[in-house]
Amino acid sequence: MNARAQTQADLGFVEQRLAHYKELTIAQLLRYVPDKEPRRYLWDLVTAYPRRAGKGLRPGLCLATCRAFGGEIAAGLHCAVGLELFHNAFLVHDDVEDDSEHRRGEPTLHAAHGLPIAVNVGDAMNVLSLRPLMENLRLLGPSVTLQVFDEIEHMVRESVEGQALELGWVRDNAVALSERDYLRMTLKKTCWYTCIHPCRLGALVATGGGVDLDTFNEFGFFMGAAFQIQDDLLNLLGDEGRYGKEIGGDIAEGKRTLMLIHAYDHAAQDARERLHAFLASPRCERSDADIAWVHALMERTGAFERARICARELAQAAAERFELAYGELPESPDKRMIRELVGYMIERDL
Amino acid sequence: MNARAQTQADLGFVEQRLAHYKELTIAQLLRYVPDKEPRRYLWDLVTAYPRRAGKGLRPGLCLATCRAFGGEIAAGLHCAVGLELFHNAFLVHDDVEDDSEHRRGEPTLHAAHGLPIAVNVGDAMNVLSLRPLMENLRLLGPSVTLQVFDEIEHMVRESVEGQALELGWVRDNAVALSERDYLRMTLKKTCWYTCIHPCRLGALVATGGGVDLDTFNEFGFFMGAAFQIQDDLLNLLGDEGRYGKEIGGDIAEGKRTLMLIHAYDHAAQDARERLHAFLASPRCERSDADIAWVHALMERTGAFERARICARELAQAAAERFELAYGELPESPDKRMIRELVGYMIERDL
Repeated sequence: MNARAQTQADLGFVEQRLAHYKELTIAQLLRYVPDKEPRRYLWDLVTAYPRRAGKGLRPGLCLATCRAFGGEIAAGLHCAVGLELFHNAFLVHDDVEDDSEHRRGEPTLHAAHGLPIAVNVGDAMNVLSLRPLMENLRLLGPSVTLQVFDEIEHMVRESVEGQALELGWVRDNAVALSERDYLRMTLKKTCWYTCIHPCRLGALVATGGGVDLDTFNEFGFFMGAAFQIQDDLLNLLGDEGRYGKEIGGDIAEGKRTLMLIHAYDHAAQDARERLHAFLASPRCERSDADIAWVHALMERTGAFERARICARELAQAAAERFELAYGELPESPDKRMIRELVGYMIERDL
Repeated sequence: MNARAQTQADLGFVEQRLAHYKELTIAQLLRYVPDKEPRRYLWDLVTAYPRRAGKGLRPGLCLATCRAFGGEIAAGLHCAVGLELFHNAFLVHDDVEDDSEHRRGEPTLHAAHGLPIAVNVGDAMNVLSLRPLMENLRLLGPSVTLQVFDEIEHMVRESVEGQALELGWVRDNAVALSERDYLRMTLKKTCWYTCIHPCRLGALVATGGGVDLDTFNEFGFFMGAAFQIQDDLLNLLGDEGRYGKEIGGDIAEGKRTLMLIHAYDHAAQDARERLHAFLASPRCERSDADIAWVHALMERTGAFERARICARELAQAAAERFELAYGELPESPDKRMIRELVGYMIERDL
């Protein structure tokens, strides 16, 4: 097999296992959704995002880590369900906050059902996540159950801090930002809940606390940041049908991506002023032509190339940290999946 | 002392004790707010609503119940803090959902800082509430700590269901509603988290689970519904300076109050059609003259009088249930406070 065919095989392997874990998680998740009124205004809507196509990264990483550390799927499944509920709650509120139009190929929840109902549905998903986490008690006992709550509390705190940075920068039209600022925001907004926390939870429930959870922090940071940069690249360069959101939506929203920061930093004075004015204008006044101009500016300043390099370097660093966190475990399909997930983060096209 | 002076004395006693418990709770709450960045976009804003004047009903009811059942303040304080954080998170999101302009005499959080940041601040307050609840572990042990989480999960679920009903009715312009619909929505939206749950938590932490918590359900329902109707009356008839929200705001928002339901039910055909059209119009097209007309229609159809009677009857029923839930406890200032809180709910002017 040549290198390209090998990569394709790895991607297929990762996607297959993610899909398997996602299926297990969603089936279990749906059992926690109350079968009662109010359906149309609440409980039916809670299942909208989880039912849509998604990669299932977080439950997959949690369950694979749990198994790689010798745990049963049953030990990790409640955490995976809780994580997936938190993630979807986060998406619902994130879409409201960014006023995004599409999510996973369909209208966002607030676009379809109105903002008030969407905010409330997000709150409902957050509270639903408590029930599976309480279920840990029977299988894992009170100590691990309460440690999981500790982990969750930390993870959500990181997420709201990262979200606050991103929203605050947009609101105040911050432009003097560096790659370092971007990575700090991404560490909080994305890496904690997408990578670091799922690994920590999986190892915690598998070992009952017998492993130093901080081993996963750098691994999760590097992998999560690579994931986020790839996500931002796909938002600008991807195939709308596969990606499921409007292409260029991040530009319309004024999101401080690595590419936007790079473009601003490397633009000539007049282009920089035009970009600043674009970002200062009300969202509804940003035309398709303006968005295309920002896109071209990114291209011209080498922002896409810089982002690709950055994502590759981060993935490389994650691969090294993988050895520290998982290297001594016996080989297993789950260990292989996590190792190959690092490459998947920057090779994926959706 | 004549009856009126007695009532004033009772109100003063209730307000004084509420203020005391609120002060204890807020002082403790502020310790849980991280002293770190991002301040301007997040942590400083988390303290905005809790610092504003508020009655402190929920922590007061929780702590008074805890003490009436023989518990120490320390046993209930973490729950009181958690409750107050949940309550304030709920207010932030509720103000977003209703697009309210004022809260406790100042601009709502989203009016002052933008909707995206406000939604995220509400999420942050929800997660902050987990920390004090975890602190229960040291004092109360794992079993009670986890029971408290069970209670919280139930309470928030009721709240989002009630909120969904109210928001759904507004969105779909539901008008064929009965007092029974209103009371069911209020049970979920208000009574659970304002009255039933604080009593249950207070008794749970005081007795370590040695009392049937369902005893508080009817007491809390009747008292909470009386509270909500009085709140809705104050929104229409109160003094803006004291009440802290825009008078008539509920009409502008199209909220399905008991008075609106009554007015629709008892209006002549043409007035009913006009009311229906008013409620179908976009919020921004509802003029002050329209709002005054709805107000006058409520007056004309006897809606205010009906609401006052309803609130009095509910308070009467709550007073009877008080005896079932608290009657056998030894007399104490806390028992007195809870007894007199029932009257306070419908006598208060803010």
